[in-house]
Amino acid sequence: MRIALAQINCTVGDIAGNCRKILAFTQRAKEQGAQLVVFPELSVVGYPPRDLLLKPQFVADNLRGLDLIASRVSGIDVIVGYAQRNETPVGRPLFNAAALLRDGKIVSRHFKTLLPTYDVFDESRYFEPGPACDRCNLVQIADTTAGLSICEDLWNDEKMVSRRLYHQNPIADLHAAGAQVLINISASPFVAGKHEFRLDLFGSQVKQFGRPLIYVNQVGGNDELVFDGNSVALDAAGNVIAQAKDFEEDLLIVDLHGNTGNATTTPHTHAHGAAAIYKALVLGLRDYVHKCGFKSVVLGLSGGIDSALTAALAVAALGKDKVVGVAMPSRFSSDHSIVDAEALAHNLGIAFHLVPIRSIHEQYENTLAPFFDRMARDVTEENLQARVRGALLMAFSNKFNHLLLTTGNKSELAVGYCTLYGDMCGGLAILSDVPKTMVYELSELINRQAACELIPRNSITKAPSAELRPDQTDQDSLPPYDILDAILHRYVEEEKGVSEIIAEGFDAPTVLRVIKLVDRSEYKRRQSAPGIKVTSRAFGYGRRMPIAQRYEQVMPRHGEPSPIQE
Amino acid sequence: MRIALAQINCTVGDIAGNCRKILAFTQRAKEQGAQLVVFPELSVVGYPPRDLLLKPQFVADNLRGLDLIASRVSGIDVIVGYAQRNETPVGRPLFNAAALLRDGKIVSRHFKTLLPTYDVFDESRYFEPGPACDRCNLVQIADTTAGLSICEDLWNDEKMVSRRLYHQNPIADLHAAGAQVLINISASPFVAGKHEFRLDLFGSQVKQFGRPLIYVNQVGGNDELVFDGNSVALDAAGNVIAQAKDFEEDLLIVDLHGNTGNATTTPHTHAHGAAAIYKALVLGLRDYVHKCGFKSVVLGLSGGIDSALTAALAVAALGKDKVVGVAMPSRFSSDHSIVDAEALAHNLGIAFHLVPIRSIHEQYENTLAPFFDRMARDVTEENLQARVRGALLMAFSNKFNHLLLTTGNKSELAVGYCTLYGDMCGGLAILSDVPKTMVYELSELINRQAACELIPRNSITKAPSAELRPDQTDQDSLPPYDILDAILHRYVEEEKGVSEIIAEGFDAPTVLRVIKLVDRSEYKRRQSAPGIKVTSRAFGYGRRMPIAQRYEQVMPRHGEPSPIQE
Repeated sequence: MRIALAQINCTVGDIAGNCRKILAFTQRAKEQGAQLVVFPELSVVGYPPRDLLLKPQFVADNLRGLDLIASRVSGIDVIVGYAQRNETPVGRPLFNAAALLRDGKIVSRHFKTLLPTYDVFDESRYFEPGPACDRCNLVQIADTTAGLSICEDLWNDEKMVSRRLYHQNPIADLHAAGAQVLINISASPFVAGKHEFRLDLFGSQVKQFGRPLIYVNQVGGNDELVFDGNSVALDAAGNVIAQAKDFEEDLLIVDLHGNTGNATTTPHTHAHGAAAIYKALVLGLRDYVHKCGFKSVVLGLSGGIDSALTAALAVAALGKDKVVGVAMPSRFSSDHSIVDAEALAHNLGIAFHLVPIRSIHEQYENTLAPFFDRMARDVTEENLQARVRGALLMAFSNKFNHLLLTTGNKSELAVGYCTLYGDMCGGLAILSDVPKTMVYELSELINRQAACELIPRNSITKAPSAELRPDQTDQDSLPPYDILDAILHRYVEEEKGVSEIIAEGFDAPTVLRVIKLVDRSEYKRRQSAPGIKVTSRAFGYGRRMPIAQRYEQVMPRHGEPSPIQE
Repeated sequence: MRIALAQINCTVGDIAGNCRKILAFTQRAKEQGAQLVVFPELSVVGYPPRDLLLKPQFVADNLRGLDLIASRVSGIDVIVGYAQRNETPVGRPLFNAAALLRDGKIVSRHFKTLLPTYDVFDESRYFEPGPACDRCNLVQIADTTAGLSICEDLWNDEKMVSRRLYHQNPIADLHAAGAQVLINISASPFVAGKHEFRLDLFGSQVKQFGRPLIYVNQVGGNDELVFDGNSVALDAAGNVIAQAKDFEEDLLIVDLHGNTGNATTTPHTHAHGAAAIYKALVLGLRDYVHKCGFKSVVLGLSGGIDSALTAALAVAALGKDKVVGVAMPSRFSSDHSIVDAEALAHNLGIAFHLVPIRSIHEQYENTLAPFFDRMARDVTEENLQARVRGALLMAFSNKFNHLLLTTGNKSELAVGYCTLYGDMCGGLAILSDVPKTMVYELSELINRQAACELIPRNSITKAPSAELRPDQTDQDSLPPYDILDAILHRYVEEEKGVSEIIAEGFDAPTVLRVIKLVDRSEYKRRQSAPGIKVTSRAFGYGRRMPIAQRYEQVMPRHGEPSPIQE
């Protein structure tokens, strides 16, 4: 059987555009002799549609889209993801569904069983799980019986997951019902290292049941999430026999021969580590800018590493003519900050403006002087500088219709080392899930790829500084970034407690200080721009913390009374 | 049986503080001769704990808190809500639980069956539903068999809900198992009209099963949510025999006599309509400020109705000595804006500062002139004024440690009639779920309650204006507020589609324009301050919309080709 894996870039809510794309890929698959073309999960509406699913009109439009696609199908079978109304009187109003289309008709409808409701996923908010049933997710394609599943259905493998969240394994059910081939349609977002885990997981499932697997994933950025594609076919022994491109649309043709599923194509290789993160950020940035209707971006260039990396990513995503850099020195800016910013703009070939903020900042201080009489300078005056810069950048954004990129990294955002309405201004926080240590790694990668110092060496080697007061450096307030990032990884991504982290050998006062900073900065993150998720726990949709809360982890000290005692 | 309904104000994460409060109320209940004291859902940790529940250390601390409470209980039975670990190897790692405590021990543990996962609720993210079982949620209190349920367990009534989300009705199960009295512990947040609905719902359940009901709700504000208390006891015929205070802590003693459950106390009355919204906003503001560790607030006073109402609410919540008003006139400000702002500050007795922004605004324009050469003035210059004000207010906030209140209402936030990093600056958006028409109603209510014009008449009667250009009024850009609010209610709260709204008699181009404005302003709302939920759908946690999306509802026009066609 010849199957086409249609790894398409869906735009959330663009039902008309997604349908056109599905029809165009179907036509290409047919021209290449495929008997079946498979599209990703919820491809008619784009993943994740979130609360658009609560609009009955949206669901109706998605069903019209499905009907229209079906009416145009001939000479090939099509599997496509969409949202199905739950017509029964009890339960959530929708199913996360797949339809088999053939000869102008919807042949059958199939429902997702396992609904991810963790991290960035909210599927139990919208969907009823598909009913348990014997053969209802089997489809007959030519002489092959295929077992259909949707994304999470494939993930409840007891050997591979640390805790099984669900009691069923739909893949075991499909196998028991007689599936000869497994087909999974997905919208599985990128996280560093996830595709390597996927291959292990898929191999485990395939070996357990001895059936080949066709896995079709969405590609492209939708808000915080970047879908990496990386669709694959595995033979019945668990070998990868075909792999689609990573971070690009693709139409992968696979010939499955008999039950063993040996195919004729050779797999692509996919990017690992920092190289994969780089691709995710570039795609996420490009899609966010374009899907929001912008063509160009503006950003502040401080001469530091974060803004340099952001600018380089923007050029890679949009082209140098679509990126504008603005340096905004204050009285505390060092000479090298302007020199390094200008060198970066020159290296990248982007527009560059120099807008000193001293006179505006002084005017603020003069205006406020009568009210701040005799009070010492403090963080107030530092923040004002950052806010002047934010307002200037937003003026460029408003006047020229550039999307403003904010340049802060995950380490800063975690501990609140950033100014709300200041350097946090922007429509997209491209580095908000990239720890500072990874900022350096990505910068070195970019220079290696360019085979020249695209990002000035001085921006990489100098001590990081916010330059909001004389001779300030980040390490006046924060532990060294390698220590900070190691603690943050354990606290934010791994949800480890204070004593666990200290037991790994970290300095106790440092751990307590970092954790307190993280907990107390929640109010800033609530108002931060959306970012691009690249780790297992990004700030934003996937981490939902209360603000007005008073949980404090205290180290258990021997013999002390419990903090609960009066 | 004498039962104490302990309607307490829990702070999220403050396990030590919540435990101390539970012990203090237990002591009071015992002194009043109660055999049983009942606390709200998850009262050990405060509701909603959100992703704190993902921290194993947090769950461990909550279990320690429960143990400590149990160890101190004697001479009275206690029912308290907490988070229980799911010790089985499969399923979500926690249960939403209630424990019965007696004589220093945890007698039994009971689990919530129905897990709300809609609007602001994410319980399927954390909890496994309690297993179906016959008698496991029955508890024996003296000679009475009580049936225990948790919040949502009581809500799946087929007569009262528009769609039953769940297949079970745990109350029917408790009745069938032999419960003589129903006890429900809740954390049910305020929404206008909800308590009236609750009474109908409870009456329906009670009449169906012929058992009295004890309902104990949390009170107090935790981030966006305000819990109204309003705990009640119903006799077996569905009559309210006792009602706790609304929007205040209370310890309500109820004597249930036999199965009919006739009691001796007289019910409190509770506030309705605008008066209930007023109480919710005052409590939500007070608790947010205090639970975040602030003592005082600052806000901009424009002379308009929104800032006047915000200031009046702040004075009611915190006292006049804890509120600072700042008027920041620009070259476009009318004389009356300063006069009205000053009159309001005088009426309320709050501190008042006058900080003209003209010189700072001019300095921005001078700085930007070389880059904006020959370009017409537009929204850029208007936004700059709002951003100067935002930065000045944040300077007052930073310097004096006041929480900044932002004053925008729901109507503005819906259509994006507000400036990001400008008038949207602030830690709490107290009116972000209050439509403009309700802003007027609340202002009139405050003046009636004060029996004087606390809010100046002129602020109520003059045409609303942002005063960002000469002679501007809101109605230059927006439909009249009564029309706008009616459309927004249908679109945002009721999720109605374009054609449905038009079919109700609204002008089609106006409806299309309003809806487009709402959809295109999502990026602003993503970065807005948390607000206080008072309607069935507030912006924030309860409405999760993608930003980079392209769904556009188009009116079906007869004979036109489908938008999906190429």
